[in-house]
Amino acid sequence: MTTVSNGVNVQALLEAREALKETPEAARFTWRATSAWKDGVHSTTRIQNFFGLGQEQSHKTETVFDADHPEVFAAADNGITPIEYLLVGLASCLTAGVASVAQNRGIQLRSVEAVVEGDHDIRGILGADSDVRNGFNDVKVTFTIDADASPQEIEALVAQSQKRSAVFDALTNPTNVTVGVA
Amino acid sequence: MTTVSNGVNVQALLEAREALKETPEAARFTWRATSAWKDGVHSTTRIQNFFGLGQEQSHKTETVFDADHPEVFAAADNGITPIEYLLVGLASCLTAGVASVAQNRGIQLRSVEAVVEGDHDIRGILGADSDVRNGFNDVKVTFTIDADASPQEIEALVAQSQKRSAVFDALTNPTNVTVGVA
Repeated sequence: MTTVSNGVNVQALLEAREALKETPEAARFTWRATSAWKDGVHSTTRIQNFFGLGQEQSHKTETVFDADHPEVFAAADNGITPIEYLLVGLASCLTAGVASVAQNRGIQLRSVEAVVEGDHDIRGILGADSDVRNGFNDVKVTFTIDADASPQEIEALVAQSQKRSAVFDALTNPTNVTVGVA
Repeated sequence: MTTVSNGVNVQALLEAREALKETPEAARFTWRATSAWKDGVHSTTRIQNFFGLGQEQSHKTETVFDADHPEVFAAADNGITPIEYLLVGLASCLTAGVASVAQNRGIQLRSVEAVVEGDHDIRGILGADSDVRNGFNDVKVTFTIDADASPQEIEALVAQSQKRSAVFDALTNPTNVTVGVA
């Protein structure tokens, strides 16, 4: 395998895979977010701590995210819309996967860009037509990748990233979500 | 109905609902994100423009989001993980819904907080066990709401928000996602 420098510590990930086969409890992570309503449909959501490898963990810093609706929804546009955050997650997950798979396959990346488009008929959320779903009708991701690899190898990188993507799975398959009041 | 000031322009939303029944084409939105790989599993994703109401639209400003993996994944932790962005979207979507429904029902909100927890067995994405899915195993949202309303009315606010939530639908029901190379 050619030595490439995509910056992914694949060796550590392969070792984690083997270690977690022996200690499946350590593989159970819980990611957390805490949001606070500001005004109108504007809220802020904070992320820092999570649980994994059997104990409390923390990101280096706390990150705060603003969400709002745009002015065409008669709102103040203090942040992107909640549904756009799903596109951020999808783009970044698939991109991380491309980098990881490329590292594992000895393919040097030079640039990776992805454009994500989510079609959304807002008659659903507005209650204008009960036959229209609330979420995306369709999502499309288009990669442009410059790498020391053939077009077929690049297609295969993207396919393998999709196969192992947490966010791709979360959007394409159902997840149980329980919503309640404390 | 009591006059309340939650800051949501419900009248505009109700008018939009009626208008879009007559002009369903205008209800077709396309949200967009563009990501660029930085190094390792670190990427940045930019959001500003979208399409809706029959024409190109724009947020007031461009927002840039960093995603990375934490140090326990042998990465640099330059941002939250991609899957955590889904929790930001879920928390903010349900919170916006609570504010909108409360405004429509004449319920004055004083504070709304939500804690979101996403259980995630990382053996899936690591390829350690093919029976473990890549995405969340389970997601739980817990609201704490202070409002001029009975506990039953607060429960009903949250239930109605869930019923109209774009992100709740996107996570609990499957969406077609197509991933390709330009």
